[in-house]
This record gives sequence, structure tokens and C-alpha cells, in this order.
Amino acid sequence: MNTLTFTSTTVSGTVLEREFAVSGIPGVLWSPATDSGSRRAPLVLMGHGGGNHKKHPAMSGRAQRLVEGCGFHVAVIDAPAHGGRPLTEHDEQERELMTAAMASGEPVGPIVVRYNAWLAEQAVPEWQATLDALQELPEIGTDGPVGYWGINMGTAIGVPFVAAEPRIRAAVFGQHWPHLLTDHAKQITVPVEFDMQWDDEHISREHALALFEAFASTEKSLHANSGRHKELPRFEADSAVRFFARHLGVS
Amino acid sequence: MNTLTFTSTTVSGTVLEREFAVSGIPGVLWSPATDSGSRRAPLVLMGHGGGNHKKHPAMSGRAQRLVEGCGFHVAVIDAPAHGGRPLTEHDEQERELMTAAMASGEPVGPIVVRYNAWLAEQAVPEWQATLDALQELPEIGTDGPVGYWGINMGTAIGVPFVAAEPRIRAAVFGQHWPHLLTDHAKQITVPVEFDMQWDDEHISREHALALFEAFASTEKSLHANSGRHKELPRFEADSAVRFFARHLGVS
Repeated sequence: MNTLTFTSTTVSGTVLEREFAVSGIPGVLWSPATDSGSRRAPLVLMGHGGGNHKKHPAMSGRAQRLVEGCGFHVAVIDAPAHGGRPLTEHDEQERELMTAAMASGEPVGPIVVRYNAWLAEQAVPEWQATLDALQELPEIGTDGPVGYWGINMGTAIGVPFVAAEPRIRAAVFGQHWPHLLTDHAKQITVPVEFDMQWDDEHISREHALALFEAFASTEKSLHANSGRHKELPRFEADSAVRFFARHLGVS
Repeated sequence: MNTLTFTSTTVSGTVLEREFAVSGIPGVLWSPATDSGSRRAPLVLMGHGGGNHKKHPAMSGRAQRLVEGCGFHVAVIDAPAHGGRPLTEHDEQERELMTAAMASGEPVGPIVVRYNAWLAEQAVPEWQATLDALQELPEIGTDGPVGYWGINMGTAIGVPFVAAEPRIRAAVFGQHWPHLLTDHAKQITVPVEFDMQWDDEHISREHALALFEAFASTEKSLHANSGRHKELPRFEADSAVRFFARHLGVS
């Protein structure tokens, strides 16, 4: 059994932030500060991007929108080899290859695809253990709705996780290559919102559209915005929040 | 000079509805009922779909969202050969061909593309005269922001209209074939939100994506939703309202 231990608690405005650990995996749970976070509400799990960590501003900013806008609980864990977690020799080798490809202008996609799939193999059981433990908290419970939101590496980990996890009822993905993900995507039937950048210098339009097409969901929405890989507009975060409000229910 | 004459005024809740005519073209102007519609605010022009008219529920519903949500003025005119406007022999011939193609399962696209382009040739100067007349109203004025929103036939008319009309600062289009529109779309540089249906039985993905690609706008967003031609989700209307709020400014 995976027990969740809270390691710190802080309040910032109307948001309660509790850091936790499950079997040594560090995470953070954001909740409405009302009643010290004890009010029952839907849960959104978020996967951070490559090279980032659980409390990167993109994560805390999205969490604030979900907590303040919808009253949801939001949890993020550090991916393997991210945040304060140890790097293996293999992680260091793959990162050096990515850095070298970026520097020389070689396509970085093949390395990212392979490395992220390797990380996902470790991360999926970690997410499942974390969700088990979070659902033991009375403010979350085993029968409440759960969503998943992850772009970039958060998609590389999230697609196999959501495919394997019937507890996830809606998901926001985007900005990844289809190569090792389409077989998982074909098993996903819950509503999906998917972000791509129309002028992405790393991921071709054809590849982005192929991954969107692969989801078996009867309800799925593609949002393609002009701009390069790192220029995903801020308003897509608001759109994702509304998507979760529609599908998980505003509490 | 094209003068606008109001022909009727009604109030429904917080929305003022004024029917008008400009050079014989019938239109409707929806405004916040506050101060009898005299408060200065941005204007959104809306083009209705083929076979519909200015007060079709899709138009009045979108107008209500814009008026109540943003405090905007919203105007729709009947397209040529629509609403109470007269049909020529050519209109009747083209409509019979469309009906026959639908009944026999033949592709309806080539007829719609050709017929809508013919309607647009008449409609563009009508829209320009209507905008001239609307801007003479003190609650609209010549320097306020103006948007355009039209799907289906509203895109067939709207793309050449917005291409020709520097007064339009943002536009929502969607669900049309690219064939006679791409040259106009290439002249459009204002922000665009574009809707397509991923499983459209009339308009192929390739054609829908080609029209989106043609817009020269540095800021453009494609929203592709699962479902057939007539299944455009209601939440896209809310998204369009937020798009206009961002670009025209909530008054």
C-alpha cells in the first residue's frame, strides 16, 4: 500500500499548497484554502514538461486557475530524473544527445520520442500509485471525477497513463510526436482536448494531426494556433480549465 | 449615402432588438437594453448560414451571448435570396441542383462553392453599405472596433468581405471549401478563429485545413471537433464570444 505523507503546508491567498511524498516520489497538491482543503471536489493530475518540475510556474499557474476557477484539487509529481530526483547514467547520456542535437540543428524529435517513452515506462506506475494514495484522502475519495492535463513530456507520459487508467474521465494533451504514442491513443475513449502549434519547428503538422486522429474518443477537439513550439498561447490554459469544468463538473 | 431606418423595436430581458433597413436590405441590430441601446460599444457583424435568415435561432442565440456577455452591439442582414428577399431564376436553378445532389448523394460542394461565390459578389457591397450606415449611429461611431462572425455561407460571404474591409479587426470563420476563397483569405491579416468538423461528410479535412492555412494572419486558431458537418459543438459559440472579447475589448 502506498501511503501519502504531507511534508509541508502553505497558504497563498485562496490556494492551499501541500507538498507530499508517495513511496519516495515528491509531489504537490493544490486545493481551495476553504476548510483547510477538506472540501470534496474533483481532482486534476498534471504532468510537467521536459526539463521542468512539479512547481514550475506553468504548473502553479494552471493549478491556480483550476483551484480558483473550479474549486478543484490539483496534483503534480516530479517525473523520473526531474525536479530533485536522481539521474541515471542513461538519463545523462540522452540529455547530452538532446543538447548536442539542439546545438547542431539536427532534429531533436527522435531522441525526445525515445527518451520520453523510457521515462513514461517508469512514470505510469508512479502516477497510478500516486492516484491510489490521493484517493485515500477524504477530500478526494475513490468515486470522484479525475482528469489529466499534460503537454509535451506531459503528453508522452500522460497518453500511456490515461490509456491504462480507467479512473481518468477527461484529458488535455498536445505538442508531441505520434511515433510511440498512437497505439496507446487508440485505447483512449474519454473526451480529449489537444493542442498543437501550427508553425512548430520540431513537430510537423502531419505528425501532430496523426496523434490527434489516433484518439478513439467520440468527443475530441484540436486547437491549432499559429506560432512556434514554445508559443502556445496563454488562452489555451483557460480553454483547458473550461474543458475540465465541463467534463468533471464545477464543484 | 446609405441611411439606416429602424422599422421596429422590442426589448427581451436585457437585450434590445431593432429591425432596420439600409437601401432595401433588411437587418437586425441587437444591443444592451441599458440606456435604450445608446451606450457606445464595439460592433460584431454576423453572417447567417445558407437557407437561414437574419433572425434564425443560431443568430439570435449568438447575439444574446455577445450582448449579455460583452455589452457589444450585433448586426445581421439577410443575405441575397434569403429571409424575405426575392429569388431570381438563377437562385431557383442553383437551389434545385443542390437539392437534387443531396437527394442522390452526389457531392454538393461544387454547387455550394459556385453559388455562394455568386451570392458573395452581391453581399459584399451590401455589407459595406450596412457598415457605413451603422457607423453613423452614435452608439457605434466610425472609430469603434468591429468584428465579423460567420460559418458556412457566412464564411463564403465573410472572407471576401473581410479581405476588402479594413474596418474589421477580428473574424470567426469556418466550415467551407477553400476553392474560391483562398485568394481572399491570403489578404486577411487580422486575428482569425476558424472552426472545422473533423468528420465532416461534405468538406474534407484537407480542404478545411487548406482554407485555414491560407489566412495571412499572424494570430490564427483552428478549432477542429469530432463530429459531422451539422454537429459543431455549442461551446464553440462561447469560444467565439471570448475571442471577440479579447480582440475588440469588453466594453
